[in-house]
Amino acid sequence: MKIHDLQTPCLLLDRRKMTENIRRMADRIDRLGGVLRPHVKTHKSIDVWRHVEKYGPVRGLTVSTMREAAYFFEHGVKDILYAVGVSPGKFEAVAELITRGCALTVTLDSVEMAERLARDGEARGVAYPVLIELDVDGHRAGVDPKGRLLLDIAAALGASSGATLRGVMTHAGESYLCDTAEGLAAAARQERDSTVLAAKRLRAAGHDAPVVSIGSTPTACAVEDLTDVTEVRPGVYTFYDLVMRGVGVCATEDIAVSVLTSVIGHQKERGWALVDAGWMAMSRDRGTAGQSVDYGYGEVCDANGAPMKGLAVMRANQEHGVIVRQDGGEPPWDSLPIGAMARILPNHACATAAQYAEYKVIDGEDVVGVWPRIGGW
Amino acid sequence: MKIHDLQTPCLLLDRRKMTENIRRMADRIDRLGGVLRPHVKTHKSIDVWRHVEKYGPVRGLTVSTMREAAYFFEHGVKDILYAVGVSPGKFEAVAELITRGCALTVTLDSVEMAERLARDGEARGVAYPVLIELDVDGHRAGVDPKGRLLLDIAAALGASSGATLRGVMTHAGESYLCDTAEGLAAAARQERDSTVLAAKRLRAAGHDAPVVSIGSTPTACAVEDLTDVTEVRPGVYTFYDLVMRGVGVCATEDIAVSVLTSVIGHQKERGWALVDAGWMAMSRDRGTAGQSVDYGYGEVCDANGAPMKGLAVMRANQEHGVIVRQDGGEPPWDSLPIGAMARILPNHACATAAQYAEYKVIDGEDVVGVWPRIGGW
Repeated sequence: MKIHDLQTPCLLLDRRKMTENIRRMADRIDRLGGVLRPHVKTHKSIDVWRHVEKYGPVRGLTVSTMREAAYFFEHGVKDILYAVGVSPGKFEAVAELITRGCALTVTLDSVEMAERLARDGEARGVAYPVLIELDVDGHRAGVDPKGRLLLDIAAALGASSGATLRGVMTHAGESYLCDTAEGLAAAARQERDSTVLAAKRLRAAGHDAPVVSIGSTPTACAVEDLTDVTEVRPGVYTFYDLVMRGVGVCATEDIAVSVLTSVIGHQKERGWALVDAGWMAMSRDRGTAGQSVDYGYGEVCDANGAPMKGLAVMRANQEHGVIVRQDGGEPPWDSLPIGAMARILPNHACATAAQYAEYKVIDGEDVVGVWPRIGGW
Repeated sequence: MKIHDLQTPCLLLDRRKMTENIRRMADRIDRLGGVLRPHVKTHKSIDVWRHVEKYGPVRGLTVSTMREAAYFFEHGVKDILYAVGVSPGKFEAVAELITRGCALTVTLDSVEMAERLARDGEARGVAYPVLIELDVDGHRAGVDPKGRLLLDIAAALGASSGATLRGVMTHAGESYLCDTAEGLAAAARQERDSTVLAAKRLRAAGHDAPVVSIGSTPTACAVEDLTDVTEVRPGVYTFYDLVMRGVGVCATEDIAVSVLTSVIGHQKERGWALVDAGWMAMSRDRGTAGQSVDYGYGEVCDANGAPMKGLAVMRANQEHGVIVRQDGGEPPWDSLPIGAMARILPNHACATAAQYAEYKVIDGEDVVGVWPRIGGW
């Protein structure tokens, strides 16, 4: 089957680009003496994971939902970090996976959650492995690496047989806002240094803290010193996207996912080519809107993947996308005739891929496979 | 089962509110002497549809994807309008449903697509029923109701045995930008008058044009004259959402869908309560950002659905939402303790519901059912 035989819209995954992205990150972290615990929230696919784990050094994986944890465990992965703060409603699901043999670690950032988790573990006869989440850049969750709360949480965990402190983790989410090499390098240093400091403080206070876990794709691409870091957790690097290109950590030709679409009409007076990839196909993510160039809902390539410079999907309804020339000029109508196919590069691969139940895996013009992906919680 | 027994995040559907929304729209259109062809793109659920069709006057339904068409046909619905411009890659799927007995009508807005469809119909021995799409407000697709192209397309269809002109359709998408009763009334009049005019022009030129199809939830709520209109196609009215409330066509208590979430942490210095409903659970839709009040990723209610005035999810990561007070003050920590549940009203029900594979159907505090929904193309 060829790309032109596919129904639109659908999600294409270029296997060669993906494999190259995976290999490059693995080589980088290996060269720095580090170990990867890649995040699977972007791809949510065991078939993608089979490629990720092939290129070491990889120690387990990271998930953003308990659904992901259960899915990857059912496919044989036993070492999993659930990197979103756990809450009481999820204790039972976590305990079940642990009881079935999964080395599942959870994260939290409050004494209250530590106490509730520990009590639950005591009641069930489970010792939940825990990382304390650190806030290294004010992005979202976590405790101050230098603050008192870190030690209080460790003490709460240490006082119970229902939980075991394993160390610290963070995600330098503000690195997504960087757009210079210096900014990225600084974010990476700060992420690494703050996390290592927190682990040292825990050890100085008498706690075991063997795990020092950091990670985001931008900082994993920029970090130069992984001393005392035990694992790095990038995610979107398997696919990359326009936001990551804007951050400066990939090139256009590295972007491994795109949405295949068909031209369904022209509104020539307005300079619009209408396609059947609307926001349902692209997601509502407008991640490039805050960067130096706004690509609307995505940048346009021809059906073979060659960029059509200056064209983007600047408007979208649920099932309609509007391709325009970003400079306001007339689109090349002859290159976008009614019925023609085009590809749209996504702002944010995690959001766009989540709109689909499967990847159409391509190699050149050939469709070489269909890989399912999961969703939900 | 009670709401508090559910895993978070999940999508709640309040059956009583939904039924009341459906009944109210049916009564309104009935009173005006009209007929509904409701759009199913918001709910994509046969269970919701069973409630919609119960409250007449309903003639068939409207879909935004061929996947929806196939799904509802498999569940016994035979009269379907595919309201996104058809393209050659979809001809085969359309022909197959027609051959299996589906009264499936397609839409288009160019002579070229009309000719390609007609040729395809001749080759397959199918006469595709067609509505010509009209552009009544510059929103996206369609031809000028007063222009020459309308007649040229009709002539192209009339010249072939492979297609049958059935009439005209439009969607007054710009009505979503209204926020006054006068603006809505004007949008509704313009939609109705332009569409009726186009049908009259077709008939004056010797074409059959029995179908005059209009519709959007805002205009369906505002229209007062349906003379010569044969069907009205609102969609989001079954659930409503914050954008529709901002447009002025529903109240907070009419919004039938919400996302149930759990508080996973506090960042007290920043005034943030973190919940496990991020943009994956809410969608990336920021529809209220362009309205007079921006609710971020959604407005916060307590677990029972009572609005917590002034609280909204103003930031979101993939699986983290950040509840803040919109006035910058301190959130009521005691009402959002760690582990507590809350509900988030969505900006845009179509986008939020699409993030889920099912509805948890509720009546008061009871979970009374689980209704699956479809996605994809």
